[in-house]
Amino acid sequence: MVRISILGTGNVAWHLVSAFSAAEDVEIVQLVGRNPSALKNLYVRLSTTNSPPKVSDFSYIAESDVYILAVSDDAIAEVSGFIGDRKGLVVHTSGSVSMDVLSQHPRHGVLYPLQSFSKDRKVDTESVPFCLEAGTDADMHVLKNLASNLSQKIYGVDSDQRRVLHLAAVFVNNFTNHLYHIGQHLCQNEGLPFDLLQPLIQETAYKIEHLSPIDSQTGPARRGDAKTINIHLEQLQNSDYKEVYSVLSESILNLYREKNPS
Amino acid sequence: MVRISILGTGNVAWHLVSAFSAAEDVEIVQLVGRNPSALKNLYVRLSTTNSPPKVSDFSYIAESDVYILAVSDDAIAEVSGFIGDRKGLVVHTSGSVSMDVLSQHPRHGVLYPLQSFSKDRKVDTESVPFCLEAGTDADMHVLKNLASNLSQKIYGVDSDQRRVLHLAAVFVNNFTNHLYHIGQHLCQNEGLPFDLLQPLIQETAYKIEHLSPIDSQTGPARRGDAKTINIHLEQLQNSDYKEVYSVLSESILNLYREKNPS
Repeated sequence: MVRISILGTGNVAWHLVSAFSAAEDVEIVQLVGRNPSALKNLYVRLSTTNSPPKVSDFSYIAESDVYILAVSDDAIAEVSGFIGDRKGLVVHTSGSVSMDVLSQHPRHGVLYPLQSFSKDRKVDTESVPFCLEAGTDADMHVLKNLASNLSQKIYGVDSDQRRVLHLAAVFVNNFTNHLYHIGQHLCQNEGLPFDLLQPLIQETAYKIEHLSPIDSQTGPARRGDAKTINIHLEQLQNSDYKEVYSVLSESILNLYREKNPS
Repeated sequence: MVRISILGTGNVAWHLVSAFSAAEDVEIVQLVGRNPSALKNLYVRLSTTNSPPKVSDFSYIAESDVYILAVSDDAIAEVSGFIGDRKGLVVHTSGSVSMDVLSQHPRHGVLYPLQSFSKDRKVDTESVPFCLEAGTDADMHVLKNLASNLSQKIYGVDSDQRRVLHLAAVFVNNFTNHLYHIGQHLCQNEGLPFDLLQPLIQETAYKIEHLSPIDSQTGPARRGDAKTINIHLEQLQNSDYKEVYSVLSESILNLYREKNPS
């Protein structure tokens, strides 16, 4: 039995508490959050009668095997300070913050779930890759053991790699979502339902589970079809969308020009 | 029973022939393709013993209720010329070409399946939206009847709307796929498997079936987090990726700045 405390009241905290609550070999000793009403909301959202003890006063933080800091990047250093010299492994859950921010704790590490967590949308953690880092092999073992309660996709990822991974996630998640928004906006302006694009969006994502993106690339830029590119640029009224179209087309053109020099 | 001919030997032709072959109320009179070996490949890929008759010589085009031109945009006008003054409804399958290109035929229209069709990857046409346009109500009825053999998602879409739809598809399909490539490339440079990003990619696509992209946007640009944006820009070595990051972040910043003026 691993005894853990979760500090934080946001989406990552909620998903971790939900998932660890269902794990047989894990006991959640405490939920810790500065803001009592956020803590209460976390409890309500858990929709379970067996919610772990909650504390808002950091001086009441209990002893635990692992402290999981599921707080915003900027708050990690400060919140870790409240753990003080309590024993136990202290980890954060951030993609972009180095493990070193926790080096004041003799035992420290990172447990980064690589997924986009939204409020009120439950994610099956079994499919989530957990990227782990620890100061010692022994603590890496502790983290692997802990994470294996939630997922079979466990990776050792150091701080430099994690930073790149987080950057890659911005491209495939944040930027992709913005392209979806542009698609929706263009449709709406023509009185067309966004539903029309949904099957294409799903197929585009699904396809690269089997085919590398570089091999599944299609479209005017892939074909080097300057005529269609220019027509599209003329069609676009929004100057931001025009820029996005232009820069992405240029990047695709350059990629395949390198691959197929004429 | 609707009697159709399919002209073309590419991916769209293959998917249409496969799907219509299984439709009870449709008879494929002929497959027409200029290139005999491409036509033979189409036949082989169908993996059925009941392949429809094939012709490579356009002078042998048979009478048919509907001629479906599943050829490249540039070839539509030329190939439609070979149909000459045969009776029947002549339609193309392109997202970006106006219906007018077929106006030499008294009966003309468009049957545009809005999906990304790849070689050797079978798409369930039931989930594909079919965008239809016709010169007359009677021919629109013919197309609706025909398309309903493949899908329940049938939309009347005029040439202007279809052009915008095709442009939107470039954003959500072609450009999204390129973002996947960038994510993969960044991972590979760090010795990380692309598998790490797959669940995030699937969740990003899946999420917008339930939540509008504008509401599911996250990330540094959404938060107006200039510090992280600058760190990411410094991390990126590839000048194209840097440009892509910069322009997409700017577009997101502008969008939410308009929504939440400070």
